Amino acid sequence: MPPKVDVPILKDLTIDNITENVHRINSQSEDARLKYVLERLVSHMHDFARETRLSTNEWLAGIQFLTDVGKKCTDVRQEFILLSDTLGLSLLVDSIDHPKPASSTEGTVLGPYHTHDAKSESLGSSISADPDGEELLCICTVSSTTGSPIANAKIDVWETDSHGNYDVQYSHYSGEKPDGRAVLRSDAQGVFWYKAIVPVPYSIPDDGPVGKMLRKLGRHPWRPSHMHFMFEKEGFDHLITALYLRGDPYETSDAVFGVKESLIIDLNTVTPEQAKKYDVKEGTKLLTYDFVLVTDEETRKLRDQKAAEAMKALGRENMKILEGLPVPDVD
Amino acid sequence: MPPKVDVPILKDLTIDNITENVHRINSQSEDARLKYVLERLVSHMHDFARETRLSTNEWLAGIQFLTDVGKKCTDVRQEFILLSDTLGLSLLVDSIDHPKPASSTEGTVLGPYHTHDAKSESLGSSISADPDGEELLCICTVSSTTGSPIANAKIDVWETDSHGNYDVQYSHYSGEKPDGRAVLRSDAQGVFWYKAIVPVPYSIPDDGPVGKMLRKLGRHPWRPSHMHFMFEKEGFDHLITALYLRGDPYETSDAVFGVKESLIIDLNTVTPEQAKKYDVKEGTKLLTYDFVLVTDEETRKLRDQKAAEAMKALGRENMKILEGLPVPDVD
Repeated sequence: MPPKVDVPILKDLTIDNITENVHRINSQSEDARLKYVLERLVSHMHDFARETRLSTNEWLAGIQFLTDVGKKCTDVRQEFILLSDTLGLSLLVDSIDHPKPASSTEGTVLGPYHTHDAKSESLGSSISADPDGEELLCICTVSSTTGSPIANAKIDVWETDSHGNYDVQYSHYSGEKPDGRAVLRSDAQGVFWYKAIVPVPYSIPDDGPVGKMLRKLGRHPWRPSHMHFMFEKEGFDHLITALYLRGDPYETSDAVFGVKESLIIDLNTVTPEQAKKYDVKEGTKLLTYDFVLVTDEETRKLRDQKAAEAMKALGRENMKILEGLPVPDVD
Repeated sequence: MPPKVDVPILKDLTIDNITENVHRINSQSEDARLKYVLERLVSHMHDFARETRLSTNEWLAGIQFLTDVGKKCTDVRQEFILLSDTLGLSLLVDSIDHPKPASSTEGTVLGPYHTHDAKSESLGSSISADPDGEELLCICTVSSTTGSPIANAKIDVWETDSHGNYDVQYSHYSGEKPDGRAVLRSDAQGVFWYKAIVPVPYSIPDDGPVGKMLRKLGRHPWRPSHMHFMFEKEGFDHLITALYLRGDPYETSDAVFGVKESLIIDLNTVTPEQAKKYDVKEGTKLLTYDFVLVTDEETRKLRDQKAAEAMKALGRENMKILEGLPVPDVD
């Protein structure tokens, strides 16, 4: 037999002392942040079981559910992200990690359909090859919170086709010919424009365990019509967001909690002058939006401030904030 | 477009109001228990994110970890149960679901190695075919909390071989020839006896994501030497338990939090009379234990009582207890 090991001693385990015992064993970690995250995770998981009096059968159903979710994941289907989205966790984490001052564009859920297949396109290109889609001209700007245009920002845009499917959802998709997505660059005036199709509502994939969960909860799996945007520019916080069409049947009941009031837009129709200037048919729908990015420095300050506020509200003392994240302050 | 749907309206979503909005959408479920469990789950998950200021990168690491855990699961390897075991959740759920009066045998973690392959064996059989194991004679009894012997109880026993491996852990295992496990029946006096080998400590499978987690936490993956028992008898609560050898190097730091003081035993040595009576060599190690089962009725009463106490402690009013489980009492 190996020699007696020198680790924290577990006491006689009961419903009431198991949590502190798990904390004691986990306190051996040398990663202060991991230790704190695990401490909160274990405390909440145990409190959840105690508060619901979780039965063995329910626990087993949970184990089976998580296993099914894992088995459903592939390179083009992330069922755990879908689960996180449908329980509001994704929106929450994005809001925490990317705090926004009032003057800037709010973020929202990334969703599972962003890919790295999108081609770089020049301004004015069409991102959609779908002949059944209703043509949409998009003219947007991107600037800083002080109103300066941001040139040469990298902008990922992506949307479904007119059937409500992303390119990766088709079994014949190979990554060679992405559709409904492109990578653009803003011009010197911070303007980027492109042609697309009017977004339509679509159902999140509900043929897996998450769909089953939604049905048990009496929930529909629909997302309101939207277009995704992701902005990257050195010195500015990564912005993942989307614009939603006002009046959509699912505007107030998005299955993944992505809609924010400031991200709901009305489409217009191009003027005859715009039709000529941008080479689109008269009567074409028009999307315009002015995106506002937050600098890394502004974001860092806000993160630190919000983290300190959260620790205060939690009544946690002896915490320090490292890179925007709270960790125990042990000397 | 489909017509505007008639579901609870989500308000403009923020870090602070997302939780109540998720509850509102989930409140459409007609299953009161599911609704309550989800409400507590979502509240704890969101509080966890808010209290840790969970970053997008950490969230993504969590998504990847859960996906890896799911991918590791097979018919003979349940990595999610291992995860639950190593975070103390399994022990907690078992303790909640199977409350025990002071006079009865405590339960402990089932672990992932129970199978339905074990053959029914007559009393006195050897459950181990391992020639390298140290022979062990086991003479146990099973009775009720009032001291009456329980005849014809179904008893599953299982243990590793002398190398610390369960039969199912060998790649050549087919289910045809189970080893280290058997199903026994107690006799009219509530006695069951069999031959086995002295249990040895073993490492839980640590070649997967859970092993990686333990290493990051500075934890060892060892379980102290033990033998598993599962009792089934009509009218009595299912008892899943195990006996642990005193003095084991991992006695106070079980990787899955299974050890309870009342389940730690000292092995003895058979007397010359016992050696003759039970047909074992002199000097053979002897395990004895008197198991005490709780009736279904006692268990039901205790479950209701403990659930009511938990709801009181939580300050939840308007709850009723249905089959031992709390649900909101809405009229």
